[in-house]
Amino acid sequence: MKVGILGYGNLGRGVECAIKQNADVTLAAVFTRRDPSTVKILTENVPVYDVKDIEAHKDEIDVLIICGGSATDLPKQTPEYVKYFNVIDSFDTHAKIPEHFAAVDQAAKASGHTALISAGWDPGMFSLNRLYANCILPEGNDYTFWGKGVSQGHSDAIRRIDGVKNGKQYTIPVESALADVRSGKNPELTTRQKHIRECFVVAEEGADLARIENEIKTMPNYFADYDTTVHFIPEEELLREHAGIPHGGFVFRSGVTGWNKENQHIIEYSLKLDSNPEFTASVIVAYARAIARLHSEGVNGCKTVFDIAPAYLSPMSGEELRAHLL
Amino acid sequence: MKVGILGYGNLGRGVECAIKQNADVTLAAVFTRRDPSTVKILTENVPVYDVKDIEAHKDEIDVLIICGGSATDLPKQTPEYVKYFNVIDSFDTHAKIPEHFAAVDQAAKASGHTALISAGWDPGMFSLNRLYANCILPEGNDYTFWGKGVSQGHSDAIRRIDGVKNGKQYTIPVESALADVRSGKNPELTTRQKHIRECFVVAEEGADLARIENEIKTMPNYFADYDTTVHFIPEEELLREHAGIPHGGFVFRSGVTGWNKENQHIIEYSLKLDSNPEFTASVIVAYARAIARLHSEGVNGCKTVFDIAPAYLSPMSGEELRAHLL
Repeated sequence: MKVGILGYGNLGRGVECAIKQNADVTLAAVFTRRDPSTVKILTENVPVYDVKDIEAHKDEIDVLIICGGSATDLPKQTPEYVKYFNVIDSFDTHAKIPEHFAAVDQAAKASGHTALISAGWDPGMFSLNRLYANCILPEGNDYTFWGKGVSQGHSDAIRRIDGVKNGKQYTIPVESALADVRSGKNPELTTRQKHIRECFVVAEEGADLARIENEIKTMPNYFADYDTTVHFIPEEELLREHAGIPHGGFVFRSGVTGWNKENQHIIEYSLKLDSNPEFTASVIVAYARAIARLHSEGVNGCKTVFDIAPAYLSPMSGEELRAHLL
Repeated sequence: MKVGILGYGNLGRGVECAIKQNADVTLAAVFTRRDPSTVKILTENVPVYDVKDIEAHKDEIDVLIICGGSATDLPKQTPEYVKYFNVIDSFDTHAKIPEHFAAVDQAAKASGHTALISAGWDPGMFSLNRLYANCILPEGNDYTFWGKGVSQGHSDAIRRIDGVKNGKQYTIPVESALADVRSGKNPELTTRQKHIRECFVVAEEGADLARIENEIKTMPNYFADYDTTVHFIPEEELLREHAGIPHGGFVFRSGVTGWNKENQHIIEYSLKLDSNPEFTASVIVAYARAIARLHSEGVNGCKTVFDIAPAYLSPMSGEELRAHLL
């Protein structure tokens, strides 16, 4: 399977690394909006092209992995490039998934291509676990916790504050809330009871630290509803200790069965990830394999992880899977 | 969807309870090898028939759920009844799955029916998690732990010992092994390091307790390779404190990503089940929905959980799933 990468940031580089781990997948080309001569990739002897020329390469690529942002890139890119390629993206604005799906589905059906949107872990693996668990235990409660991990959006929000030179925010699940859910107590949890937020901030020389801390802690939507801790640290400490992009989280279903609902069951799925973009990229590459196969079977239109039979993700045959993993 | 249950033991009763929780599923009939007049079911106004007459009811049932044992019942029953019905079973002898699959697939294709074997949690949900996690993280280690829960096979083995009146065995994961896996240490674990076995035994009056304890602890395959604890208790205590059939377990994938494999990721899936048969039954009923749908789309032959797109398990539409669970 020949894969193209569109957009070479953290996610694109993660896809490149994931391709290296999958013997049946080859990186055919990287497409960039930057000057291609300035983009150095890790893989040897693979060309980097200007995205303006992408259409000329449509016959060289089985699946194009679009590594743009959900806010402005993907709503345009995915419906556009599915005209020429089978595509996959990691669109993660949950509220706008129906709209994005409709746009991609229409364009994919018109061009006879196959697309998958919202691959990754949330949406993605977390969504799959919510779906399976809800189907198995129709009567129960769902809980999703995120972290411990870096929230890019919250880190950006800190960095926009006057007097802040750099900053990073960790979202952390409240341990006692996890324990209550895990024990089957079915708690009703407020926003504040589910997660805490920890900020590491590099202030500009002479900045008013008390004002910055107050602006962070009272910021509507981002921090006001949470217990937030702010640490001011030197920039070299931020770069040394907080350079990674870890993330993860927990999905629970707590449900009942039995004629009188007398038996309780807890399903828990959790991820602990050193690198959020590399894990997301690894999910995407597995689903790219599925999309290439579905296309070769004549299936077209837009799909999500809900529509893909798990066997399509694996390089192993049905016989091998039944013998070794069932 | 109209469902028939073949075999009314713990699993069959669990299926009956699960059907009650799914508004789109109706129990049409129960089939038994016993005298039907002696089988009292929980649902009102549903007939119990002799399994000998099952063929006469083939047009009244969309999916037949076969609740027999894996050792001798299912290898005969599933290939036999797929001649007349779409069927689903929970065949759980891992080593014989390829053989069972082949027999059911051949019979299903010959009759134009749709079958699914090995639904439940292991095989079943645990298998799915092994598959997804292996596809996402091709370089890594798998770990499966079972328990804390009652092992029927080990409890039976205890009860066959001379001088034992009754007994129950719990399989328990070793906490420190779970912690080592969860922390990413990638330990190599022996059988003894993964699970301990705890036995509650009711001895017959005057039996030699030391001999019984020794026979348990040295029993090949069942106990000899484990650290086993034996408690002798009065029968009323066994019946009062150990009447349930809880089970559960943990599936881990510990893998690496990155150009130099520098980032580590832990995927963990766990189940904590008050009732093993009721949870298994709940998985089966969700997959019965999928089998009925696949059959209505003209798909036939034998399937496993690996072949079923997750959306087929849900009573919700694709639009609803994307809007609420993705």
